[in-house]
Amino acid sequence: MTLQSFFYPHSVAVAGSASEGKLGFFLIKQLLEGGFSKVYAINPKGKGAFSVPGFREAREIGEEVDLVVIASPAPTVKEVLEDCGKSGIKSAVIISAGFSEIGNWKEEQKLLQIARKFSMRLIGPNCAGIVNTHHRLFATLETRPPSGCTAFISQSGALGGAVLSWAEEQGLGFSKFVSYGNGIDIDDVELLDYLADDPETKVVALYLETARKGRELLRAIRNVSRKKPLVLIKSGKSQAGKRATLSHTGSLAGSDEVFDCALKDTGAIRVEGIEEMFDLCRGFSLLPPVTGKKVLIVTNSGGPGVLTTDKAEEMGLEVAEPSAPLKEKFRRFLTPRCSLKNPVDFTVEGTEEDFQRTLALGLKGDDGDGEYNSAIAINVGTPFLDSVSLARGIASGAKETGKPVLASFLAGKIVEEGIRFLKENGIPNFQTGERAAKVISLMHQYHINKEKIKDLPPSPEPLRRKRGFKFPQTEPEVFQFLKDLRLPVPDFRFAETEPQAMKFAGEVGFPLVMKLVSHSVVHKSEVGGVVLNIQDLKGVQESFQKLKEKVPPGDFLGVTMFPMISALFEALVGVYRDPQFGPVIAFGMGGIYTEILKDVSLRLAPLDEEGAGFLIEETKFSKILKGARGKKGCDLESLVDLLVKVSRMPFLFQEIGEMDLNPVFLLEKGVLIGDARIIQIPGGKK
Amino acid sequence: MTLQSFFYPHSVAVAGSASEGKLGFFLIKQLLEGGFSKVYAINPKGKGAFSVPGFREAREIGEEVDLVVIASPAPTVKEVLEDCGKSGIKSAVIISAGFSEIGNWKEEQKLLQIARKFSMRLIGPNCAGIVNTHHRLFATLETRPPSGCTAFISQSGALGGAVLSWAEEQGLGFSKFVSYGNGIDIDDVELLDYLADDPETKVVALYLETARKGRELLRAIRNVSRKKPLVLIKSGKSQAGKRATLSHTGSLAGSDEVFDCALKDTGAIRVEGIEEMFDLCRGFSLLPPVTGKKVLIVTNSGGPGVLTTDKAEEMGLEVAEPSAPLKEKFRRFLTPRCSLKNPVDFTVEGTEEDFQRTLALGLKGDDGDGEYNSAIAINVGTPFLDSVSLARGIASGAKETGKPVLASFLAGKIVEEGIRFLKENGIPNFQTGERAAKVISLMHQYHINKEKIKDLPPSPEPLRRKRGFKFPQTEPEVFQFLKDLRLPVPDFRFAETEPQAMKFAGEVGFPLVMKLVSHSVVHKSEVGGVVLNIQDLKGVQESFQKLKEKVPPGDFLGVTMFPMISALFEALVGVYRDPQFGPVIAFGMGGIYTEILKDVSLRLAPLDEEGAGFLIEETKFSKILKGARGKKGCDLESLVDLLVKVSRMPFLFQEIGEMDLNPVFLLEKGVLIGDARIIQIPGGKK
Repeated sequence: MTLQSFFYPHSVAVAGSASEGKLGFFLIKQLLEGGFSKVYAINPKGKGAFSVPGFREAREIGEEVDLVVIASPAPTVKEVLEDCGKSGIKSAVIISAGFSEIGNWKEEQKLLQIARKFSMRLIGPNCAGIVNTHHRLFATLETRPPSGCTAFISQSGALGGAVLSWAEEQGLGFSKFVSYGNGIDIDDVELLDYLADDPETKVVALYLETARKGRELLRAIRNVSRKKPLVLIKSGKSQAGKRATLSHTGSLAGSDEVFDCALKDTGAIRVEGIEEMFDLCRGFSLLPPVTGKKVLIVTNSGGPGVLTTDKAEEMGLEVAEPSAPLKEKFRRFLTPRCSLKNPVDFTVEGTEEDFQRTLALGLKGDDGDGEYNSAIAINVGTPFLDSVSLARGIASGAKETGKPVLASFLAGKIVEEGIRFLKENGIPNFQTGERAAKVISLMHQYHINKEKIKDLPPSPEPLRRKRGFKFPQTEPEVFQFLKDLRLPVPDFRFAETEPQAMKFAGEVGFPLVMKLVSHSVVHKSEVGGVVLNIQDLKGVQESFQKLKEKVPPGDFLGVTMFPMISALFEALVGVYRDPQFGPVIAFGMGGIYTEILKDVSLRLAPLDEEGAGFLIEETKFSKILKGARGKKGCDLESLVDLLVKVSRMPFLFQEIGEMDLNPVFLLEKGVLIGDARIIQIPGGKK
Repeated sequence: MTLQSFFYPHSVAVAGSASEGKLGFFLIKQLLEGGFSKVYAINPKGKGAFSVPGFREAREIGEEVDLVVIASPAPTVKEVLEDCGKSGIKSAVIISAGFSEIGNWKEEQKLLQIARKFSMRLIGPNCAGIVNTHHRLFATLETRPPSGCTAFISQSGALGGAVLSWAEEQGLGFSKFVSYGNGIDIDDVELLDYLADDPETKVVALYLETARKGRELLRAIRNVSRKKPLVLIKSGKSQAGKRATLSHTGSLAGSDEVFDCALKDTGAIRVEGIEEMFDLCRGFSLLPPVTGKKVLIVTNSGGPGVLTTDKAEEMGLEVAEPSAPLKEKFRRFLTPRCSLKNPVDFTVEGTEEDFQRTLALGLKGDDGDGEYNSAIAINVGTPFLDSVSLARGIASGAKETGKPVLASFLAGKIVEEGIRFLKENGIPNFQTGERAAKVISLMHQYHINKEKIKDLPPSPEPLRRKRGFKFPQTEPEVFQFLKDLRLPVPDFRFAETEPQAMKFAGEVGFPLVMKLVSHSVVHKSEVGGVVLNIQDLKGVQESFQKLKEKVPPGDFLGVTMFPMISALFEALVGVYRDPQFGPVIAFGMGGIYTEILKDVSLRLAPLDEEGAGFLIEETKFSKILKGARGKKGCDLESLVDLLVKVSRMPFLFQEIGEMDLNPVFLLEKGVLIGDARIIQIPGGKK
């Protein structure tokens, strides 16, 4: 574990001015106040601060230093690093900004060269530093957070700082924190791999702006998620967001839909923003796993109970009514005014005992496994209610059951004491019951998904080409290419002249379809370049002439002729290359509906058969493919086979930039490609 | 203004035990502590409390009393009310619970009878009381909220209490608060009408569990929204939520989709929960209107800037890049490290002046109207930044421009001072930039929507029936019924025997469609009760026999015969009656796609032509109806005409419970009803 010296150094040097008010000074102050004592200062004046001795160069220190934190101006970082390297320091955190994030790539690369020369490892530059609360190491200019079991990795330093500042108020403790900034050496992937096995970390939170390492990042995410929950914020969803990300970190943000599709089967939980991240990390830190969907809501107030129920059901939880025997048990100690459905509404008269016994019976029952998997306890305080007493009832009920119990005490000062009691007793409190419901739902999703984490199938090697292979250009070439690869294409003919067309018509059979072939036409159907349902030779003759006249004489290459196919459904199958994650496959409703209904699902390529099945099921369209309302179902096996083959194409042929098969005709038996377009990358690309 | 004596009483009597620890005692304490002095106590012992004199009966008081607040046990309320009525008190707030909410309808009705007898008006029972901060009236057991310009009406007392308790911390002040509980006399409708014209109220917030008065409530909502923003929470979305609402207020919750459709054209803004309500009310209270979509984001930290941009664009705002001349102006005073796109990222070095000048230039420009309509200013604090100075820059920038500026200072204690400064200077601060973005978007929506508030067209009167009119039962009767009403049905025939069918075939023409007519079959296509594309007389004969054999001999009534129609699209048109809001019309994609894609929009009936146009446009389907990808567009005028006519049907015929027209064939010229089903309400219903 090469990162050990970053998180568990015996001694730390701070490089940068130690004069009062300067960054080096503040870093030293932080380290000392945080409880770390073996600190040295390095700066041109050789100035120390507080009890910390100062040196002009690292080599003067004369003792072994594990870690250097550099906060000197950008132009000086190179020399500082060289000096540290020479003196044998193996780990450096570079807080200093002014590198690739403002276009200064060259200077940044020099830092990496120096590090390589001395076998040093780097975090940063342009980062907010690192924290290990369990080692009392606060090598950061940000607020020192409370200790706990959540590790937080942030690509953005300032956002990382905001999270640390907020932690105390939000009641979340951190094990480790790293802001890796421009990440020229140690980056998200390596940090995730480290934290996956860190015994002091139960939950990993990650703020990401760009997924630079694409599939390697996904591997690291899977590795964490198999061991502990990974909660992730990914920004740059919007177009403007992407632009800002670009200017902020100097690299391209992948499109958001692709990011979501890449996260499939990884077990990671993507949240919307910081508040949700805090909520969920508190849930994972404090609570046992949520093993099922059934949630019991107990409340002393109807309104918030109903709002919580709404949210719980929206999130896919079951707010099931208690069974008759359980109701009977409730009835024995609850007043007749209580509603015994779920939410169980004690009304404002609800007591400590009501909360305690209802939770215990609902979650534990008499034999250790009650009807519910988790519970939310809501208390709306009034100036005349003792919120500590109710908190006590909830805490002791929860303790009895060993199942997850979340609280929502509303609101403000009148429930402050109660919330403090909850916190001391390990019950997380949420601003609203709705937020608690969302946490339960996401924790449950993790519990299910972590068993289904699935690696991508191995990527096929590029095909060896036959001598004289030319990448297909025109439609008949594309169809021949697909046919050679054993993809399902109809029996077609390419006719360059009218007599040829007349001859082929008999071979294809009537009714038939004729399509214009020309380099100058991209969207055939929009220029009337497709004639459907040709019934006889006269039709063939007329159609040929009509199509020929659509383009200038030199542009006309001929026509393709297909049998007229009557399909159950029309689908779209496509592949394209994402700059971050590589080949992606798309499936959805085809024809005129594709763009309007946008019922398309995406997965990373290649697919195995299971993955192809998931891809189909993720569309709404899939519900009718099996047959509905008297309509027959199509041949899903052939569709799966096609998807698997298409998903391998960009690996087999690096020239394939994008490929659209639309429509693909779905038949009762088999599938057939109705139209195909391939966008070639000049020279090919990995 | 009959509610004046509730909100501006000169004197208040409290009915209920005034012994220490009892509700009457607490109510008196609240009134006095809130600053209201003319208070009397009424209770069987004639006991007073503090400086307040006690009386056994209202009649003993001997002075005029404007308002009585009743908190005595449920069985005693009747007598108390009678006594107050006799002594001339005209307004009563009944806090006491134990009436219809626990099934005690009879007792509740008696209260209403007594009130009527004495021309008294009632709020409650089972409510949390009323507040008028501008009159120092706190007739409630809940926390006394700070004064402000938001009025809050809550159907739930406890939720109302939670909101009041949270108000101080959330920084929202209230003008008036009413919890109307079971609402037997004064209810949401009357309170909304009052608050619409209340000069002390700038924003109205409403928490609703059931919309009991349906269309009357919508009228009151429109009336408020035309004058000031109305922010609304409606709970009971989920099935379980509905059940809980039922148990909680003793009335049925309407389905959530219908509620949303009913709110269309009313100008009301529905929010998800209490936090969003607070955010939005603070925005409306403190800020000028948001007149356009362009938002400027200024920040000293990239990450939160990007997250805010993501949310802003998701909410439909434009995070447009500054024009070249504006960038040039920014460049003059900002350091080269700043990103001048939008978000404008000052980095951690951003100063008071940077915030102030950038906001002023972006919102005001040189001539009073800058490029942006609103701005979000984000400050991520560090322990070494002066948040007050940045707050000062933002406040003075905002003041110069007169446009809405929202802040988000992150996080916790390190920005507390800055947030306080913002508050003192009327700049609302939000927990995250994302929440600020949502507020701007909703405020902008209100600004647009309030100009488009539209009353429902008048409901048609029931049709006078011709002598002998019988409501249609079988399919041929239904088609004849629709034809008589001049709805577009194909030229059809009803044949009871095979010879009839053979004869009619010539009249209908080939190819034709034949459908089974039988009382015992509901979904014809699912039992093979429809034969398409019959080409000749032989086909007619065979099909007749085949359909006849589908049902037991006694159940066969005959067949209907239609010409085979080739449509551009198939649509669904339907009406049904919602228990709260009455007739609703639905339009969407027809055929096999209806249930799977659920691309259906709803509006309250009846529709005028404009409303029918909106109904169509609210579906995704509408985008292809005008023609797309080489496909022809359909006759929208005829479709609008059909929708208007169908929307009037439930008013013309009170027997119509539900009606499904599916498919409706959309043609290049005209529309035709392909299949029709009417579910009749026995005896008819309004």
